[in-house]
Amino acid sequence: MAKKPELDDFRVPYFDDGKKIAKFALADFDPAAKPFSTGTKDGDRDRLAAIGAELDALQERLHAQRLQRVLLVLQGMDTSGKDGTVRAVFHDVDPLGLRIVPFKAPTPVEQAHDFLWRVHSQVPAAGELTVFNRSQYEDVLVPVVLGQLDKATCEQRYRQIRDFEAMLAENGTTIIKCMLHISKDAQRARLQARIDDPTKHWKFDVSDLEARKQWDQYQTAYHDALAATSTPYAPWYIIPADSKTHRNVMVAELLLRSFEGLKLEYPPAKESLKGVKVE
Amino acid sequence: MAKKPELDDFRVPYFDDGKKIAKFALADFDPAAKPFSTGTKDGDRDRLAAIGAELDALQERLHAQRLQRVLLVLQGMDTSGKDGTVRAVFHDVDPLGLRIVPFKAPTPVEQAHDFLWRVHSQVPAAGELTVFNRSQYEDVLVPVVLGQLDKATCEQRYRQIRDFEAMLAENGTTIIKCMLHISKDAQRARLQARIDDPTKHWKFDVSDLEARKQWDQYQTAYHDALAATSTPYAPWYIIPADSKTHRNVMVAELLLRSFEGLKLEYPPAKESLKGVKVE
Repeated sequence: MAKKPELDDFRVPYFDDGKKIAKFALADFDPAAKPFSTGTKDGDRDRLAAIGAELDALQERLHAQRLQRVLLVLQGMDTSGKDGTVRAVFHDVDPLGLRIVPFKAPTPVEQAHDFLWRVHSQVPAAGELTVFNRSQYEDVLVPVVLGQLDKATCEQRYRQIRDFEAMLAENGTTIIKCMLHISKDAQRARLQARIDDPTKHWKFDVSDLEARKQWDQYQTAYHDALAATSTPYAPWYIIPADSKTHRNVMVAELLLRSFEGLKLEYPPAKESLKGVKVE
Repeated sequence: MAKKPELDDFRVPYFDDGKKIAKFALADFDPAAKPFSTGTKDGDRDRLAAIGAELDALQERLHAQRLQRVLLVLQGMDTSGKDGTVRAVFHDVDPLGLRIVPFKAPTPVEQAHDFLWRVHSQVPAAGELTVFNRSQYEDVLVPVVLGQLDKATCEQRYRQIRDFEAMLAENGTTIIKCMLHISKDAQRARLQARIDDPTKHWKFDVSDLEARKQWDQYQTAYHDALAATSTPYAPWYIIPADSKTHRNVMVAELLLRSFEGLKLEYPPAKESLKGVKVE
């Protein structure tokens, strides 16, 4: 009987484990796989709703405790479903407890600083759950593919990212990084759907088609970045994402496991409030 | 037959309309009224869900168009339901399109600036829907009640707020301000419920009871601030809020009307994408 899949089967080996990381290949992961699906779309939606309710309750404790921080990083090719994941996974989480940070092409002021500057200013505060929709990883993907970053500088950035994430983790931030992994065919269908629906054109730029032409180079850049920055304190997970409901369930399961690991409790009752009657 | 209530019956008269504003009294509004309720809690929840779906669709257009900005300001006494309103009204709005800004007691850096400084940095950008959970109005409420702000300085702040909001409106921001209006009795019950549930103690500070002792002074400070800052470009609405479902429906109705007034459309289709086939 086949082994039941575990979330950790989809974790990128830690970069300093030379033997395992040498065997890691992004291409070995099937984007169409649905290892965490319940088997039906309806079942997946039910499971997602159940996790959503749990996440909502746990997030309230995170907020009440105001000690720990949680950061979810979402990366993936165009149309891999970063926006859709946010919408689905956090539908039942209190918007007061959630902060979504989209990183776009850097502004001139952002470009005038080191690449981690704009990122650092957005990391979660104590009690916060923050989602990065794209992230510091854009700076080791796009310029690599465009040939604007030499290998030594790129390796330096990988190390800077590891050091930065280690610092965040040491100061109380739980970091979960998800690579939404889609196939080239799935992207074709999704891009075509956007083109065919004029109300979706605002999501689309002709340059998106240029990036698609460099699909293989992007896959290589992703592989290299994931391999160099998956660490015990900020692991990367590959999320098979051709199925949207599977993608949502798997990201939610990962997040739920991380939250459960935090042992979140409400702060102790205040003695000063014991027996107080409001007048 | 009684006149059907209109949202504008709950609008604070504009401050420069001397005759009407002279007749305005916060105390004339019944916090227990439910003018926009469907009559049952279930009916209210259904109506709220229907508005939520409409708001979600309109917000996507706001975001797609990236021209206009929407700012919802929520104010009210402790336990008036600012947090609950956010949770309920925006449950079905895409979290990617929504930014909630809670204003707490100012930090030393914030205090070292004018009172509008921290507020200005958080106003919505083009295409954004932003909710202020508390706001610039804290600075014409708390210090007034605590006797830390003389009348002349307070009048000056009212004017500064009007000028600031006029500037935002002139630059494309739709501003809706809601005063969640509860009765002193309703607050007693809600505070007591928090005291009686130890998992709610984190929401509670003994100083909250001090503020309650100054209930009448706060009502006066609210009345004066609302009267001085309700304008055609940033009107105040009184939301009867003893009933939570009524409060949610009324805020949602107001927001829906404001969104509908924006005539939001998707940007025109891109000619360059016509007939493009993705390879």
